[in-house]
Amino acid sequence: MSYTMSEKILAKSSNKNKVESGEIVMADIDIAMTHDLTGPLSVQEFKKIGIEKVWDNKKIVIPFDHQVPADSLDAADNHIAMREFVKEQNIESFYDVNAGVCHQILPELGHVVPGELIVGTDSHTCTHGALGAFATGIGSTDMAMVFAKGKLWFKVPETLRFNITGDLRKNVFAKDVILNLIGLVGADGATYRAVEYAGDTVSQMSISDRMVLSNMAIEMGGKTGLVEADSKTLDYIKNRTNKAYEIFKTDLDAPSLEIIDVDVSDLEPQVACPHNVDNVKPVSEVDTEIDQVFLGSCTNGRLDDLRDAAKILKGNKVAKGVRMLVIPASKEVYTKALDEGLIKIFVDADCLVTNPCCGPCLGGHVGLIGPGEVSLSTSNRNFKGRQGSPDGKVYLSSAAVAAASAINGRISLPE
Amino acid sequence: MSYTMSEKILAKSSNKNKVESGEIVMADIDIAMTHDLTGPLSVQEFKKIGIEKVWDNKKIVIPFDHQVPADSLDAADNHIAMREFVKEQNIESFYDVNAGVCHQILPELGHVVPGELIVGTDSHTCTHGALGAFATGIGSTDMAMVFAKGKLWFKVPETLRFNITGDLRKNVFAKDVILNLIGLVGADGATYRAVEYAGDTVSQMSISDRMVLSNMAIEMGGKTGLVEADSKTLDYIKNRTNKAYEIFKTDLDAPSLEIIDVDVSDLEPQVACPHNVDNVKPVSEVDTEIDQVFLGSCTNGRLDDLRDAAKILKGNKVAKGVRMLVIPASKEVYTKALDEGLIKIFVDADCLVTNPCCGPCLGGHVGLIGPGEVSLSTSNRNFKGRQGSPDGKVYLSSAAVAAASAINGRISLPE
Repeated sequence: MSYTMSEKILAKSSNKNKVESGEIVMADIDIAMTHDLTGPLSVQEFKKIGIEKVWDNKKIVIPFDHQVPADSLDAADNHIAMREFVKEQNIESFYDVNAGVCHQILPELGHVVPGELIVGTDSHTCTHGALGAFATGIGSTDMAMVFAKGKLWFKVPETLRFNITGDLRKNVFAKDVILNLIGLVGADGATYRAVEYAGDTVSQMSISDRMVLSNMAIEMGGKTGLVEADSKTLDYIKNRTNKAYEIFKTDLDAPSLEIIDVDVSDLEPQVACPHNVDNVKPVSEVDTEIDQVFLGSCTNGRLDDLRDAAKILKGNKVAKGVRMLVIPASKEVYTKALDEGLIKIFVDADCLVTNPCCGPCLGGHVGLIGPGEVSLSTSNRNFKGRQGSPDGKVYLSSAAVAAASAINGRISLPE
Repeated sequence: MSYTMSEKILAKSSNKNKVESGEIVMADIDIAMTHDLTGPLSVQEFKKIGIEKVWDNKKIVIPFDHQVPADSLDAADNHIAMREFVKEQNIESFYDVNAGVCHQILPELGHVVPGELIVGTDSHTCTHGALGAFATGIGSTDMAMVFAKGKLWFKVPETLRFNITGDLRKNVFAKDVILNLIGLVGADGATYRAVEYAGDTVSQMSISDRMVLSNMAIEMGGKTGLVEADSKTLDYIKNRTNKAYEIFKTDLDAPSLEIIDVDVSDLEPQVACPHNVDNVKPVSEVDTEIDQVFLGSCTNGRLDDLRDAAKILKGNKVAKGVRMLVIPASKEVYTKALDEGLIKIFVDADCLVTNPCCGPCLGGHVGLIGPGEVSLSTSNRNFKGRQGSPDGKVYLSSAAVAAASAINGRISLPE
C-alpha cells in the first residue's frame, strides 16, 4: 500500500504499522509547546486532572512571546504562574521574555527534527512542518491532557500536495507563493487536510522560506504544512540538536492524496487584501496608502526577511507619516541582524525596532492600528480587527514589498 | 537688589524689571510640550475655548513616547487625534512613535536653550533646567490655555540651592548624588521651590549628568531643577540649534534663596528603597533579590548610562531568573549605542532591548511587575504600583548599580 507522510508519521507515533485517513488514532507526542498567552489555561486544566507530574519534563517547551515584556498586570500574573509551573515541573526548555517567537525558536534551538509529532497551543505550530515534522495547533485544554499523558487523539488527515515548479522571478519570495496558493484554493481550501509543499521550487528554497509556506498552511484550513526533509533540512538541524530523526516521504500514489500542480515562474509579488487572507491580488493591481508597516512575525521575521527588507531600505527613509515596525523573530535573528548591520539600516531608515515578540500580528499590545488606518504586514492574518481596530485594514505581503511600500507610503512593487 | 535665576527668568518672561518670590506673574511661554498620554486632554480642552489656531505653531513640541507603538485601541485613537491636531495646527515639531522620550528629545533636538520658560504636560519637564531654562510640568487643562494664549500664570518660587562639592568616587554617579539629596531633604523637601544644583561637582558633570539631577527635582517637590548654563551647556546646544539664549545666574545673596552645602566626596552608591523615593540607603546596606532590572527612562536612559552599564555587562550574563530591560531614551541614543556596539553587548548579555519609549517607568504596557516581584530601575519613582502590581517593589539606582545587580541577581555594588 501507499501512504502519505502524515499517515506514516501518525502510524509511527501511534505504534501501528499503518493508519489511513479518517482513522482516529491515539498518538505519542514528541514535543508539546505552550506559551505565555495560551499556557495558563493549559496549566490550570492540567492541575484539575490531579496528576502531580507532567509526563515528560524534557518534551515540553515553554516560550514567552505574546505579551513580552509583561504588558499588563494580567500578563505579569500569567508569567509568574507559568514560571512557577516550569519550576515545580522542572521543565527544561523554558524561554523567558527575551527569547523570541515560539515558532521561530523551537526549530532554531533544536527542538524540531524530521518525523516528529509536535503539538502546540498556537495555530501556527504547523510552521515546524517545514522540517518534515507533523506539527499542529491544539487547544489549551487538549494540552492539559498532553501534559498528563503525552498522548493525544488525531483524525488522520487526507493530504493536499502542491507540486510547485518554476524559478521565482526577482523580488518574488516564498510569501508570494503561499499567498498565491491560498488565493487559489481559498481560506477553506485545505480544511483538515495535511498540506504538502513539494516540487523543484520548494527544493530550491531555504528552510526559512519553507517555514513561510508551512506557517500559512493553517490559513487554508490545513491541519499541518509539510515539506519532505532533504539535505537542507539535515544541514539546518545538525548544529542545533543531535536528537534522532526519521525522514518520511509521501508515496505519490497514496489514495488519500490530491496533487495540485502550480507553475510559479510568472508569479508577481502578491498581496492579501482586507479582510480575508484569500483575497489575494498581484501587488501591481493594488495601489493603497498605508499608515503602518510591520516586518516580523513567525511568518516573515527571520534573518532572510530582514535582509530582503534592509537591501531595499538601505540609504532610504520610511515615508513621512508612515510608521514601520521591525521585530526580529528571535534573539538569534536579532543578534545576527545586529552583526550584519541590518538593525542600523532599519534605525537609520526611521524604523522602530523592538524586542523579539509577536508584535502587531495579533493586535495585542504592540502597534495596534486605529479606525481608518491601513497596515501592511508580513504576518499571516488580516481578518477584521486582527491588528487593532475592526475599522482598520490589514494587507499581507513579503518583506520586500513591505520595505518598498514603507518608502513609498503606499503598497508598491519592490522595483 | 539680588535675585535668583528663577526670578530673573520669570521677570524676563513676564516683561517686568523684577519679580519676587510669592508674586503671581503671567508669563510668556517659550516652549510648550505635550505628549501622547496627556496631550489628548489638552487638545480637547483647547477646542472648547473656541480659538481656531494655537498661539504659535513653532513653539509647541509634541513627541509620542508613553504608549508607543500604540499599545491599545485607546492609544491608537489618541495617536490619530494628536496627529490630526498636528496637521490642522501645522505644528512643526511633531515626533511620532519612534523618536524617544520627550524629556530627552527636547534638548537633543535643539528645543531647549538657557533662559527659556518651558512648560510640559509631564511632571519631569523640570529635566530641561539642566540647560539653565526654567522648565516645569503643568496640567493638561493649563496647557489648553497655553495653546490658546502662549501665556500661563506662575507663582514665583523661592529657591533651594544645593552647593555640591567633592570629587565623586569610582562608580558613584549623578544618580547617587540626587538620590542622596532627596534622602537628605525628603520627598517634600523642596515643595514649590526652584531647586538649583551648583558647586564644583556639578560644574564637572556632563550635561547628561546634570539632566539626572534636574529630572528628579520634582521628586523632592521642586517646581523646577536648575543648573546655571556654562561652557558645557553652550557646547551642548551649539550643534543642535541656533535659537537665541540668555544666561541667568543666581545672586548668592538673594533674599528668597536657601543654600545647602553638600560634600559628596565620600558618597557611596545609593538606592531608593520601596515605597518612597526618599527612603534612600547606601547600596552596601541593601541586599535584596531582584526579578527585573530596567535601564532607561528620562532619568538614566542616555548614552552615558548605557555606556556605564555596558562596561559592567560586557562579557557577562544577566542572572538566570532575572529579566533586564534596556530602553535607550531616544533614537539618537539608540543609534549611537548601536554604533558603539553597546546594543550588541546588551543582547549578548541576555538583556531585552526595546524601542525608545518610557518603558516600565510608569507601569504602562512595557514590562510590568507582578505581585511579590522586585524591580531595580534607573528611573525616578518607586511608589506602590508605579511599575505594575501594588504588591511589587521598586528600587531606584544608577545604571552601574542596575547592571551589576542584574548580573548578581540581587542589588549589588558595581565593584
